[in-house]
Amino acid sequence: MSEVIATYRLPGAKGSFEKKAEGIALGLTVGSWTDLPQLEQEQLLKFKGRVASINEEAGEGVGEISIAYPGRNYSNDLPAILTTVFGKLSLDGQVKLINLEFSDDLNRHYPGPRYGIEGIRELAGVKDRPLLMSIFKGVIGRDLAYMEDQLRAQARGGVDLVKDDEILFDNPLTPFYERVKNGRRILDEVQQETGKRTLYAVNLTGRTSELREKARRARELGADALLFNVFSYSLDVLQELREDENIGLPLMAHPAFAGAVAQAPHHGVAYSLWLGKFLRMTGADFSLFPSPYGSVALEKDQVLAISRELTDEPSPFKKTFPVPSAGIHPGLVPHLMEDFGEGCVINAGGGVHGHPGGAESGGLAFRQAIEAVKAGIPLEEVQGEELRVALSLWSKGGKG
Amino acid sequence: MSEVIATYRLPGAKGSFEKKAEGIALGLTVGSWTDLPQLEQEQLLKFKGRVASINEEAGEGVGEISIAYPGRNYSNDLPAILTTVFGKLSLDGQVKLINLEFSDDLNRHYPGPRYGIEGIRELAGVKDRPLLMSIFKGVIGRDLAYMEDQLRAQARGGVDLVKDDEILFDNPLTPFYERVKNGRRILDEVQQETGKRTLYAVNLTGRTSELREKARRARELGADALLFNVFSYSLDVLQELREDENIGLPLMAHPAFAGAVAQAPHHGVAYSLWLGKFLRMTGADFSLFPSPYGSVALEKDQVLAISRELTDEPSPFKKTFPVPSAGIHPGLVPHLMEDFGEGCVINAGGGVHGHPGGAESGGLAFRQAIEAVKAGIPLEEVQGEELRVALSLWSKGGKG
Ligand SMILES: [Mg+2]
Ligand SMILES: [Mg+2]
Repeated sequence: MSEVIATYRLPGAKGSFEKKAEGIALGLTVGSWTDLPQLEQEQLLKFKGRVASINEEAGEGVGEISIAYPGRNYSNDLPAILTTVFGKLSLDGQVKLINLEFSDDLNRHYPGPRYGIEGIRELAGVKDRPLLMSIFKGVIGRDLAYMEDQLRAQARGGVDLVKDDEILFDNPLTPFYERVKNGRRILDEVQQETGKRTLYAVNLTGRTSELREKARRARELGADALLFNVFSYSLDVLQELREDENIGLPLMAHPAFAGAVAQAPHHGVAYSLWLGKFLRMTGADFSLFPSPYGSVALEKDQVLAISRELTDEPSPFKKTFPVPSAGIHPGLVPHLMEDFGEGCVINAGGGVHGHPGGAESGGLAFRQAIEAVKAGIPLEEVQGEELRVALSLWSKGGKG
Repeated sequence: MSEVIATYRLPGAKGSFEKKAEGIALGLTVGSWTDLPQLEQEQLLKFKGRVASINEEAGEGVGEISIAYPGRNYSNDLPAILTTVFGKLSLDGQVKLINLEFSDDLNRHYPGPRYGIEGIRELAGVKDRPLLMSIFKGVIGRDLAYMEDQLRAQARGGVDLVKDDEILFDNPLTPFYERVKNGRRILDEVQQETGKRTLYAVNLTGRTSELREKARRARELGADALLFNVFSYSLDVLQELREDENIGLPLMAHPAFAGAVAQAPHHGVAYSLWLGKFLRMTGADFSLFPSPYGSVALEKDQVLAISRELTDEPSPFKKTFPVPSAGIHPGLVPHLMEDFGEGCVINAGGGVHGHPGGAESGGLAFRQAIEAVKAGIPLEEVQGEELRVALSLWSKGGKG
């Protein structure tokens, strides 16, 4: 059957959830039922919400209810579906939307990642280890020359990807198209030097209706990938970027503002859905989220739930790269690889730039740490000078 | 100075807020400061965030801090500003964004409502009382003929506006353009009969990039106004609808999904900003929100704060109509008019359709209640039959 099943967690006494569930199932679909004539009931049955399950054992004073919303009630786009399943309900006291299950026929209309983990590995030329990404640091108020130096140092350190800071917008000092062109030129130069190709994700920003044209032009100018603050726009806008064949670039979803919807314990939408399932469905090749270790930290079970949604199989969609972020330094690489395996991106800002030898040394330290974990060697036993310096800095509690 | 000042409420011990505030002011702008050479500090000063104020007396274990973000750090659009002021921060534990103050030069670039309260009063031909709006009820699974009957009955009851249900999308039974055309025809007919013009707000739905074209076409077909689930899209999309001179229709912002961001006590964004200031800035002529009386209820101080943001003067923007909604029946009209004055829209679904005499009688009962309050007559003393029946039904606890 064509339907979306929404699961909610909400407070209530045992025995009270069935009535609540019936109220939602009717209220968000056909409106009323028992007072309708038999004939109308028959006609409306296929539009009526259905209580799919009730779990009164979800916790002390907490239950979970699942409601199936018939696919014929909404157009198959996320604005319509979010409005249906959590429009009015989001305003109604304490209730958290924890999952949506799409029937196959509805799922089929979402694109999923264009590249996915395997496609990105091909672009980056990296087969069997986590990718390494670093982030421009402190670039507000700086000019293109400053960014060029940072980009060159990061690329020489052997990182696979460099991303813009999400708070760098189109601005006179470092305009969007200039960043794209310069990035291309510098990364081509470093590739000549080192043989290693680094990809640059430029921050796609501006008014909503201008994004697609900017993205197309960025591609023409040689952009490798697009960073996108999807939650300051919307999931549907991300999906439209993904679906545009004239863009065709890898899409990196930044979690900025995602916490406004997902951070509260008893309200809004679960992180696993918001940063996990939805981003994979709508076409992000990368999903960034706070790691469980760093300064801005999520709980480990939340983070692993996001990661599962991004990579679980079977799925109609390619896999999205999980990118646990914030406060990552080389000493955390063994933890990251234990928790996320090889199918993740290790992403560091301060952990690269804060290296006493500079960003180039910072990148090398991470690469050395990744090789060591792959080879089963404890980090303390690694000979690499850059890693040794990094470990001694960050073991003293330095901030990644 | 060109800047946005963001105010946050967050937990912490007395004496701890200054350091937090400094950390945010730097972390979300230039990144670092004390370790920069003098010359760089001078160059970067105009990009550096500034702690505008700290209030450690905001409550037990709670403080409020205000940070000024220089306008040159971001493009002047809400996605960029939300990313700056609450991007990473939204993910960082317990913190609520409670206000943004835009400097005049930044404010000037937002459109505000095209019509505003005064412009809508002219369109509706209503000078000196609250407007009355009713909502289609139980229309999912129904056809155009069903909606036509409902629309005719509502209009004959003397309501000023009728709006679509927010969960009615473009669908084969009642397609968007057909609803517009039929709505126009029926309301023209009723106007012939009664002399009273009722306006119909049709629900603008679908994929983001198609909205503006659909809205333009709706206008050509005679649409009166557009209902829009802005929070399932984004504020920037609402603003683009407002700015499009080829649309030019009144915009009615529905709060569906707004609770996902605003409902939690200690996370996300305050209702006054989300449903108040932002909707007025970006151009909503109407802002719907849960009333403090009904089934889905906000607290009264939240509701009044929304209403103030929509209507306070002086302001660079026209006023947005506050539309306290959900569970409204005629017996609540005195409360509504006491709390919101004449400058609001009284909006009822069940409170119109649930009248024993039907939607036409339901509308008349509300109109009688409004006239009575205007004339200073207690509702129980009103002679109108429709109001008498309504009061007797809803005083027994019937649901509006
Ligand atoms: Mg950043
Ligand atoms: Mg409704």
